[in-house]
Amino acid sequence: MAYIELGNESPGVGGLMEYRPETGRTLSRLAETLLRDEETISHPDNTLTRGERELIATYVSSLNACKFCSTSHAAFAAAQLPGGAQTVADTCGDLGSAPVSDKLKALLRIAGAVQQGGKAVTAEDVAAARATGATDLEIHDTVLIAAAFCMYNRYVDGLGTWAPDDPAGYEQAAQRIVAEGYMSRYAETAGA
Amino acid sequence: MAYIELGNESPGVGGLMEYRPETGRTLSRLAETLLRDEETISHPDNTLTRGERELIATYVSSLNACKFCSTSHAAFAAAQLPGGAQTVADTCGDLGSAPVSDKLKALLRIAGAVQQGGKAVTAEDVAAARATGATDLEIHDTVLIAAAFCMYNRYVDGLGTWAPDDPAGYEQAAQRIVAEGYMSRYAETAGA
Repeated sequence: MAYIELGNESPGVGGLMEYRPETGRTLSRLAETLLRDEETISHPDNTLTRGERELIATYVSSLNACKFCSTSHAAFAAAQLPGGAQTVADTCGDLGSAPVSDKLKALLRIAGAVQQGGKAVTAEDVAAARATGATDLEIHDTVLIAAAFCMYNRYVDGLGTWAPDDPAGYEQAAQRIVAEGYMSRYAETAGA
Repeated sequence: MAYIELGNESPGVGGLMEYRPETGRTLSRLAETLLRDEETISHPDNTLTRGERELIATYVSSLNACKFCSTSHAAFAAAQLPGGAQTVADTCGDLGSAPVSDKLKALLRIAGAVQQGGKAVTAEDVAAARATGATDLEIHDTVLIAAAFCMYNRYVDGLGTWAPDDPAGYEQAAQRIVAEGYMSRYAETAGA
């Protein structure tokens, strides 16, 4: 169980968001903007799909060995990517031979550098991504997704939250996220 | 200069927030809630002042060697803490002998563990903080402040933004933050 008394039984980040809704709402909004929202996905400088953005989140969470986040976002990515769970497993297992585009590989390399630390990203990493067609917006969003999951992963594990073993709960969560997004729990409140 | 074309000359996270206001607003809201807002500071389970919360942000940014964030938040902390810049320098230099309360030291130790990774925080670290009187809310906010600055630091350095050498700019920013908070740049927009 968590290191603090949350007053709820929800696993992972969900229990923390219920405990402190003021920050929970903001953290959900950040995930929605970076991973899902229509304005981001349909931006003229963006080609990254929701599944590809979730794959970046999964890859970083896997590098941080955060069970709750990596299992959750692996399910969310698998539900929205060609090749499903196999694509996710292959990418997290060996990026070099992953069944994804060269552009996404180059962006995932940047994400992996961010996981180590901001200064680990080099001008060469960025130039390599740009050479595959990555736009400034895609490079920006990749760095911020990776940085944000370095936050979520530390938040979830630093407070000792629990993560279910049963895959069923993660798959149910994936169905909800794909259908409703990250802000649905706040839908009854104005100004989301 | 930054690895991407920001279309503005602002240093550090400010340039990134102007480039991508959708995420900039959310990142500013998170800082406001964790470091400043009245609801947080006046919460019955909170004794951490704005200066102490800024000191946690500064300590983590210093461990991450992020020049822009550590210099900025050091100025924001110094402007709001007894002992000012000397307290900040002493704390970042040697936590053991820092001129801060035992409770804040125990919370800063948790923040330092979060900087290494979520799993580096132990039940003993949390028990030690609780023994000095730290509440669940203070432990929660400490972990999330530390995790959030692991994000901001990676965002700022991962995109290669620039940081001024002249201390005058940081001191002007401190005056603005102390007077107006993190959301003032969005004040003209409804629903902040």
